[in-house]
Formats: sequence, C-alpha cells, structure tokens
Amino acid sequence: MTDSKHTLALMPSGRRGQAPSGTTLLEAARSLGVEIESICGGRQTCGKCQIVVEEGHFPKHAITSTPDHLTPMGPVEAAYLAEHNITGRRLACACDVVGDLLITVPEESQARKQIIAKAATDRVIEVDSAVRQVYVECEAATLEDRWGDWERLQIALVNQWNLKDLAIDPQVLPTFQKVLRDKKAQLANGKLGVTVSIWQESEVLRVQSGYAEGVYGLGVDVGSTTVAAHLCDLRTGEVVATESVMNPQVRYGEDLMSRVSYCMMEPQGVARLNRAIIGALNDLASKAAAKAGITIDDILDIVLVGNTVMHHLLLNIDPVELGGAPFALALGSAFDCKARDLGLKLNVSARVHLLPCIAGHVGADNVAVQVAEQPSKLDDLTLIIDVGTNAEIVLGDRQQVLCASSPTGPAFEGAQITHGQRAAPGAIERVRIDPLTLEPRFKVIGYEDWVEAGDVIEGARATGICGSGIIEVVAEMLLSGIIDTDGRFIEEAKDRSPRVQFNGRTGVYVLAESPQSATGNPIVVTQNDVRAIQLAKGALYVGAKLLMQHRGAETVDRVILAGAFGSYIDPRHAMILGMIPDCDLSKVSAVGNAAGDGARIALLNKGARLEAVRISKTTEHVQTAVHPNFQNEFVGAMAIPHATDPFPHLEGQLPERRIAGRAERRSQRRRMAATT
Amino acid sequence: MTDSKHTLALMPSGRRGQAPSGTTLLEAARSLGVEIESICGGRQTCGKCQIVVEEGHFPKHAITSTPDHLTPMGPVEAAYLAEHNITGRRLACACDVVGDLLITVPEESQARKQIIAKAATDRVIEVDSAVRQVYVECEAATLEDRWGDWERLQIALVNQWNLKDLAIDPQVLPTFQKVLRDKKAQLANGKLGVTVSIWQESEVLRVQSGYAEGVYGLGVDVGSTTVAAHLCDLRTGEVVATESVMNPQVRYGEDLMSRVSYCMMEPQGVARLNRAIIGALNDLASKAAAKAGITIDDILDIVLVGNTVMHHLLLNIDPVELGGAPFALALGSAFDCKARDLGLKLNVSARVHLLPCIAGHVGADNVAVQVAEQPSKLDDLTLIIDVGTNAEIVLGDRQQVLCASSPTGPAFEGAQITHGQRAAPGAIERVRIDPLTLEPRFKVIGYEDWVEAGDVIEGARATGICGSGIIEVVAEMLLSGIIDTDGRFIEEAKDRSPRVQFNGRTGVYVLAESPQSATGNPIVVTQNDVRAIQLAKGALYVGAKLLMQHRGAETVDRVILAGAFGSYIDPRHAMILGMIPDCDLSKVSAVGNAAGDGARIALLNKGARLEAVRISKTTEHVQTAVHPNFQNEFVGAMAIPHATDPFPHLEGQLPERRIAGRAERRSQRRRMAATT
Repeated sequence: MTDSKHTLALMPSGRRGQAPSGTTLLEAARSLGVEIESICGGRQTCGKCQIVVEEGHFPKHAITSTPDHLTPMGPVEAAYLAEHNITGRRLACACDVVGDLLITVPEESQARKQIIAKAATDRVIEVDSAVRQVYVECEAATLEDRWGDWERLQIALVNQWNLKDLAIDPQVLPTFQKVLRDKKAQLANGKLGVTVSIWQESEVLRVQSGYAEGVYGLGVDVGSTTVAAHLCDLRTGEVVATESVMNPQVRYGEDLMSRVSYCMMEPQGVARLNRAIIGALNDLASKAAAKAGITIDDILDIVLVGNTVMHHLLLNIDPVELGGAPFALALGSAFDCKARDLGLKLNVSARVHLLPCIAGHVGADNVAVQVAEQPSKLDDLTLIIDVGTNAEIVLGDRQQVLCASSPTGPAFEGAQITHGQRAAPGAIERVRIDPLTLEPRFKVIGYEDWVEAGDVIEGARATGICGSGIIEVVAEMLLSGIIDTDGRFIEEAKDRSPRVQFNGRTGVYVLAESPQSATGNPIVVTQNDVRAIQLAKGALYVGAKLLMQHRGAETVDRVILAGAFGSYIDPRHAMILGMIPDCDLSKVSAVGNAAGDGARIALLNKGARLEAVRISKTTEHVQTAVHPNFQNEFVGAMAIPHATDPFPHLEGQLPERRIAGRAERRSQRRRMAATT
Repeated sequence: MTDSKHTLALMPSGRRGQAPSGTTLLEAARSLGVEIESICGGRQTCGKCQIVVEEGHFPKHAITSTPDHLTPMGPVEAAYLAEHNITGRRLACACDVVGDLLITVPEESQARKQIIAKAATDRVIEVDSAVRQVYVECEAATLEDRWGDWERLQIALVNQWNLKDLAIDPQVLPTFQKVLRDKKAQLANGKLGVTVSIWQESEVLRVQSGYAEGVYGLGVDVGSTTVAAHLCDLRTGEVVATESVMNPQVRYGEDLMSRVSYCMMEPQGVARLNRAIIGALNDLASKAAAKAGITIDDILDIVLVGNTVMHHLLLNIDPVELGGAPFALALGSAFDCKARDLGLKLNVSARVHLLPCIAGHVGADNVAVQVAEQPSKLDDLTLIIDVGTNAEIVLGDRQQVLCASSPTGPAFEGAQITHGQRAAPGAIERVRIDPLTLEPRFKVIGYEDWVEAGDVIEGARATGICGSGIIEVVAEMLLSGIIDTDGRFIEEAKDRSPRVQFNGRTGVYVLAESPQSATGNPIVVTQNDVRAIQLAKGALYVGAKLLMQHRGAETVDRVILAGAFGSYIDPRHAMILGMIPDCDLSKVSAVGNAAGDGARIALLNKGARLEAVRISKTTEHVQTAVHPNFQNEFVGAMAIPHATDPFPHLEGQLPERRIAGRAERRSQRRRMAATT
C-alpha cells in the first residue's frame, strides 16, 4: 500500500475522481459521492454491494481499467459469490483499489435506489426511508465489563455506523438479551451479530439475531369511504402488497359532516369512530402482511394521510370544531408518535407519521396529492382534482399553488347510489350506451372483455356499479338522450327502449338485466342516482372554478384527475359530465390514487416529509364553502354539462339528441338578456 | 424612561449590579442572576414573584432605597394584593425600576428554592425539576388563520417563554380543544389562557384551562422487600405525602436470587413479578395522591431507583442474566420513557426516569445513595451501608469511590424472623434488656413512651418486631448474656429468668408477653431468628471489609447507616452486633432511606440526574461474591461481635457476662498460635 492515488469512474452516475490506493472500493465510491448499499457494514455477508469491473481503456475518463486493479478475492468473498452463483462481480466492501478503475454499480446495489411509481406520469421515488436496518457486531458480556448489553450495542453502533445518541424503545428491552444470546447471533470471533432497525438515525425499534433482512412500512390514504394501503419494502421501495377496504365509519355517517354531527350528538361518538378506523387499519395491515408473506412485526413505519376529519379521528380528536366556523384544527403540523399510542397493531415499537394539514377543511390528503404531483414544479397551470367523498382541489404552477376542498359526498365512491359499490371484483367500471338502440355494454372488474347487452357470462356477473362506472353511465345517458342537461329522465326515451322505465314521473334505466346480475335482480340507474352524481360533480366543478377565479385564470393548461376508486376515471366522460372545467381533452389525464401515492412517497423518502411541510406552509388556501359566489355557481354547475361553460371543442362529438335542460335554457335566456 | 441605569442589590443572595431604568424588577433581577419565580409570565395573576423593598441608606451597597424607586402600583397589582391580604410587598413583574433599590426576595419567591431534606446530615436540594408549569395566553382561532390550536399555542410558548421545538404527547390531543374552549380559558382580551406542563423544555405533557398550579412527582425506592415513595410538589420541592408498602414480589421469593430462580423455573415468572411491582407502584401512587388531596392526573413525573433485579423487573426484563456470571445487565444507563409504557397509571402523559446502574449487582439504588450522600465530595473516608434485603455498600472520599452490593437477605426488614414485620404502627422498634433481671422494655411504633415489662397499655400492644427492633434485641441479648458471641442461646440463662425458655436444645426469649401483644400470643425471639440476623450482618460486614481491603484502609473515618426500614438503626447496637467495622461511635450516623432521598433529589433537580450518570461512570465496582476472601471472611463475620475485630473502645460498655462463643475462642486460639 502506498500513498499514491488512482482514478476511479463510477457508472451509471458518471462520477469520477481520485481515491487513495488501498481504500476499499465501498469507501472510495462513498468519497466520490456514490452510495453503494450495505447492510452488513463491510463484512462480506449481505452481498448488497456487488459491482462490476469494466475492462479496457476508456479515453473519455482517461482510465485503463482491469479486474486486477482491485485486490484479489479472499476466501469469504469467494464463498459468498459461489454460494449465490454470482459471476463477473465483486463485493465492493471486500476489495481495495490498487489501480485505475471503471466500475458499474448495478441498480440493485445503489444505496438510494430510484423506483418508478406507476401512474399516468411516472413518478421517480428516491428510496431513503425513515427506518433502516444495519447489521452490527458487538462485544459479548464479560465479568470485567460492568456495563450492560445495550451500552455495548451502542458502542458498536457508534464505531461501525457512526450512529450516536440513540435511544431504545422500552418495548425492545424485554426480549433484547434473548436476541443477543440466540444461536444465530453467536459469531466465531466471540462477538454477537445482530441486525438493528433504526428510525430517523435516533431510535432503535427492533433488534434481531444475526444478519436479517426485511423492514416494511405502510403508506395509507384514509379516505372517508375508502381506505387504501400500500405495504412497501423500505429498503427496495417495492410495493409488496396493496389492500383497500371500505372505511367502517360509513355506518355512522356517509359523508364528513354527518360523522361530525354523530360526534356532536353521541357521547361515545368520537371513541366509536376512532375505534372503527383504527380497527380497519389493523385489518388492512394484517391482510397486507399475509399477502406479502411477512408478519406485522416486520412493519416498523406507517404514514397516514387523510382529510382533516379523518386526521383528527385517527388521533382520537373530536372533529366538532371542524364542523363550524372558524373550522379550527386541533393540530395541523406534521405529527410523529408511536403507532401503539394510536392503538395500531404493527411491530410494538413501530412509528407513525401523519403528513401536515393545510387548513380546517384541507387535510393531509391534499398535501399528499401535491407530494405526488408536485404542482409547484410545473410550468403549465395545472388543476388537480382528487375525487372522493371530500374532493381535494389544487390549482397551481411554479408561480403559486392554491388549494381547496369540496364536500362532494360519497356518490363517486358508489355510496348513495342504488346499486353503487366500491371498486372490487364484480363492479361495473366502464359503460357505453348505443345512442340509437339505448342498449348498453359494460366492463366488469375481474373480467377482461366487454359484456354486450344480452350476454350472460359466468365470470362476469355484475354485483353493482363503482365510481368510474357511474360517471360513465350518467354521461352516456346524456349522450344517448335518456336524460337531459338538467339530469331529468326524458319521458320520450321510454318509447325508444324498454330499458327506460317510468314509475309515475321518475325514470329508471336498466343497465344490467337479471341474468347478468350476480344478485338475480337487475342493476339500474335511478333518477336519484343521477341527482346524487349531479350534486357531487357540481361541488367539484364549483371548487375548481373558484380557484380559477382566485388565480384570475379563464382556463387551465392541464387537468389531472385523481381518486382512490378503482379504475381511472375516463377523462372524456368526466368532461361530458361537467366534472371539470373546459380543457383540451389531450391535456386531461387520470392518475389513480394520488393521495395514496403521496403517502407512499413520504414513507419511502424522509425528504418528502420535509417537502410536505413546505407544501403545507406555502400552499394558499381558498375558502370555497363561505365564498360569496359558491351558491350561485353551484346552481349552475348542477347541469350536465354545466350551463355556463359549454364545450366548443366537443362540438360534433355530442349527439344531436342532447336536449337542453331548464338550467341551460335559463342560462341561455340570461346570456341573451345580457347581450341585448 | 431614560437610558440611565440604577444600582440594585438583592437579598438574601447579596447579588448587586446595574439595571437599566424602566425594566421590570423581574427582568432586572434575572439579569443579575437572581431567578424570581413566575408561572403567569408577568401577568400579575400568579403572585409568585412577591418581593419586599427595603427602605433606607445602605452604605455597604452604596444604595438609598425607597419604595418610590419602583413605579407606582397599578389596579391589577393592587387588586391582587388586596384580594390576598398582602401588605408591604410588590409583585416583581408589575413594577419597573426607576431608582436604586435594595430588595429582599423571600424564600417562597425564589425560583430555585432550596429545601432541606430531613436526614442525619441535612441535605440541601435545589428545586429545578424536569417538569414545570407555565401559563401562556394564545390567540383564539379565526377564519383567517388556517393553522391549528397546537400551532397557535406553540407560537405563544416561543414568544412568552422562549420554549422552542416542543413536541406534544398524543394523549394530550383528545381533550386539547375542549381545554382551550373551556370558560376558564376565555380572557377579556379575546385570547385563551392555559397552563402548560412541560418536560425537560421539550415535550408538552398537559394543558389546563386558565391559570393552574400544582404539578407533582414521585421519587420511589423500589426495594426487594419495601417500596417507599415520596410524593413531591415539583415547584416547591415539598414532600406532600410519603407512603410505603411491602414489595408484593415477596410472595414469589424473599430474596433476589429466589426471584431470579422463579423467573428461570416459571414461564410466566417475569410477567408475574413485573405485574406485581407495577401494581404496587400504582397503589402507592393513588394512596399518596389521596393523602395529599390531589389526583393521579396531577402526577407527571416519577423517578425509580432499585437494585439491578428490581430495575430489570420494572422494565419487564427477565433478570436471569443477573443470576450467573458474567452478570450482564440488559441496560445499565439512565433510562427515560413514558410511564404508560411501563403500565404505570399516573397522568396518561407522565414521564418516568430510571437512574443508571453501576454493574450487574450494583443498581440504581446504590447510585441514589451516592446522589444523597455524595461521598465523592467528602474529605473523610466514609463507609455507607444501605441496609436492605440486598445491601448497597459504598466506601469513598474525594480521592476514589468504591461500591459493592451484598445479599444480606430480608432479615433486617423483618422477613424470615418469627415475629418480624415491616416498620408500621404496632411494631417493636427499640428494645432494652436489663442485664441482671433479663426483663425487657421496648418502644412500639405509634406510642410515645417506653413500655416496661408487665405494662399492659391499650394503645401500645405490639404486633411484631421491625428491623431496628430486631437489631437491638439481638444486641441486647448478647449484652445481657442470653446468647453467646456465636449466637447460641446460653442454657444457664433459663435459670436467670423465665423469659428464656428451652425446647430441647434450642432457646427462645419472650420479648412481649401475651397481654402486651395485639395477637394475644407472646412475641418471641428464637434461635433461628438470631441465626438469620447473624447471616445478614455477616454478609454486610464482609462486603464492607472487602471494600476496605481494596482501598488498603484498616479503618474508616465515618460510617453512615442507611435503610428504608422505619426507625433509624441505633449505631451503638449495630456496632455491638458487628454489622459495621470498628469506628469511633461518634462518627457513626444513621440517615434513614438514603436511596429514597436520592430518588427524590433526582426528581426535584434535573442536574442530579446528570450527576447520577457521572457517579455511575466513575464509581469503581468491587466484585465481592466472587472475591477469594469472601467465604473465609464470612465465617468469621458470623460471630457477634465478629471475632477478627473486637471493639477496644467499647471496653467497659460490654457487660462482664459476655461469653465468648466457639468462633471467638477458635479465633483467640489462632491469634495465640500466630504470636507464639
């Protein structure tokens, strides 16, 4: 070993620099800013730091790289590679740099892995989670050393990982000494090998005998109607299971305000709603763990997002103050505590993180949507609508981000709809209606092909209609002249098809006949169902319009439709229905559960939690419910498509049979009066 | 108000200095290093900052002080003083300095009060507790302010008390908004007044409506046999209640090793022992609270000390590793967590602090004894013996402090003694035996006078004998010739008094006859009782001698006898019995429960917790049980007084009738053999 230095270049990052001869490749790479993963801390046992030596002369880097520019393979490394059938690679912790090198660090060896989240616009997540595992070897107890096992482990954690001033959860202590004395921890050198899970470089959450791998976390979007959880491997970022359930609080009230009322009326209300949601999260966690083949003990972190009422009920806080002006949050900032303090049954030492809220009606789910979609980094003025029982609306670009929430009600999640249901196998998720015959075709979740009218397919019997199906069927009913722009059934339609039926003056449309239905009863869309959808989409639309007014924008450049309810919303149908303001259809995209993705991002990346705090502080909140224009806009927005904003670019796509409803006629009269 | 300065002198501290004209007296005193107490933060409502203005010219300070060197009294201050009938005083927060002043700060207004702990050597404790209350006024919620109540309270805590980056316990949240909206919190200025209890300037544990006073803590010595708790006012340092109970773990084993064995043999052992001690602490807490007229919600901090087995069982850690070499502690350092995490039922957010341990057999109780007695600050080489089922022994001075623990067994706490009992009303605590007639007289806890032989006094019927009584009766039995120095009953004694009786070859001494006994049966001391005391005192003595050998000291300058068992031990009897090494009787003192006092000091003073850490790191541990000389010394130490160390200075105080036992005779023979 000399004092000389060698030139190193590291692919794919392209980092290049000098490293002293004799340093391990792991250290050399780190000194050049390339973090190679390691759990075992250089003991040639975890195999996470595999690299490839490129051979040849690389003029660009002025390097001639050969495998013998690394020290030769020792028996431990050779045994590891042989056991795992690995050829053409070295362990970066096991070889020293003795000449110039061009090294490729495969993706799986990069410490801060980047994973791609599936969404309309692929999201890149850098994995840098709050909880991580490290393997350490600590001294065994001796009669001479009067200190305790925990103190010896602390010394090892400082020396081997530079982790200082760590605390240990009291719940770790009862099993701690047994773990250290387990056979798996006994090393040939007399030391004790253990794997320690650490939260935010400050607290020990778990100690396992020997070398162990596997630390998991949950990112959960707690919606008013749907609770959706991603179980993720916190090292790789991989989603190992996704589960969703109905929020069991719906039995106490379908929308937020009815749950707040329940808390006001019922002394045990808060406790019941709290127990219901905590129980649902515990069920989700154990289901997801079973699906992934792990135990709940392996789950050490959970990130929760939700609207402000959900946020408060998770913390067992009475949401009554959110039910009336000034809509005071008990707590709006990001919150960390022990999962057990909320009654969550994960690993007994697991942590919970709640993203911050923005205002009394704009919760951590709105922040999560922004963490996922990052409107503040966009050049285009973008409208993001997260459809749910309480819709989150964001309008922004680099210049300014505005937000609001709109109480749409649960119709889009299938509640308050005669045959509505959650997106689950059997639910009708897409619908088309022939404008001439009024015969429908639909798609059922769990069956690949379209089901044509009259088809009776064993695996495709419908159980109900989920959110995306409801939006499509109502839009199609308008397009085919079954309802008018006021949302009323047109009596003449019953003469065009027996699927349109009237009971007195209220109509009904038969979407699936008895043989196509799993229940044996036809699946229908009623006048009330149409009304529920009109109310919901009107609230959405008005919220969006008020944000645009606040910004002084007549139009937006892009629209992003998000929502946790199964299939993505079809942008065309959403626009026909008047859920969203006018926009070039090619600039409207659907991204699925953006709030859930935001929770997942905050789970996998510590920095995203800080970014969430920044978002909560810089997003401008627009009060919509108390806005003087709200009622006025809302009445107009009930029409399908809403009367104040026709769709010139859809001209020709809409059938001639579209019949103006009363609101549109009234609006037309008003416009005529204004121009004369 | 001008830029001029005035001279201030503050009594009784004598601090003197300049203060700018126009500053409040509270601030001026603080700038001179004199902290005057304030809970309300200068709002003239708590009345804690009362001071007295001295009038006249004070040459020593070169000050002419008059009451009008303070700004005149305003209506709020005048109203406060009138309401509370206070004359001749001002509120330091309510008046500004406008001239030279000599001020007296009464003791109750001093922020870091000094209290005197009752002990042989009075201990001065500076009150600076880990939990304190502050009163703040925070803004009420408005529609314009989108942040939450907690964020508004945080702003107020920063602005009014400079308390930054505070966390809030999740258990505070469910009632938080109701507290802020309670009538008591509503101020005329529209703000909300609340009292916040804060731990270590970092975490909010409690929020109360309006101005509130009263934050309490428990300092507990968890002994193997006796659990003793002091309930203290954390602001004044006052002990508001003292309670003790038998450690209910006794039913699973009387000494430490039998409890460790129980844990080894019984799968549910650890859980049972843990539940027993936690249950006892909960009982103690609620009893002490009831006695003091507070609720357990007012108890926000608890400091626990105990030997290492108690320490581990409190944390639900299996003590099995402490039962065999290398006696590895799971955790030896100071430990902080939530009381609820240990199952303690105090305020739901209360904190717990465990003092550090020193080694596998030397626990936090030894550290606590040192916190109370501070041997490292003494010039005299001092031996401290904390008598208990497991005795803590410390030998030290400024130069070096050594420690050890000795398994004395529970005899000194009344267990394993035929009529032994805990120190409680009815227990015989002092005994004298007439050396001629062998008639006893004794004192009973709860009755002031001595009870003479034959006296039958209604309020002084004995229920048993407690530790101090047992030590005295055995010493007196030796002095009066009932037993010999081997501890054996002398047969001839039965001829001297009917109180000495023999059943075959084993003797018994009748201390209280049936009419004097609460049970109706005589209270006696048996041969086995004497043997149990011999074993216990032998273990104590040997531990002390081994420390002296380690230090290379033939004698010690002082002996301090501590112990949690009711009455103080009488030094003379302890020395006659051979519990302690030879020392001038005037240099032997008894101090009561030093470990409990140490816990109380750490409860009342944050700095003492740091001092405890220093003690745990610098005290040198001497392994006694594995020491090669232990067995040899122990056999000799069984004698009363032990054979190797007669008491030359007691010559003449011992009766002629004292008869050498076999061990002493053997020893005499040995010494004679050695000198010939």
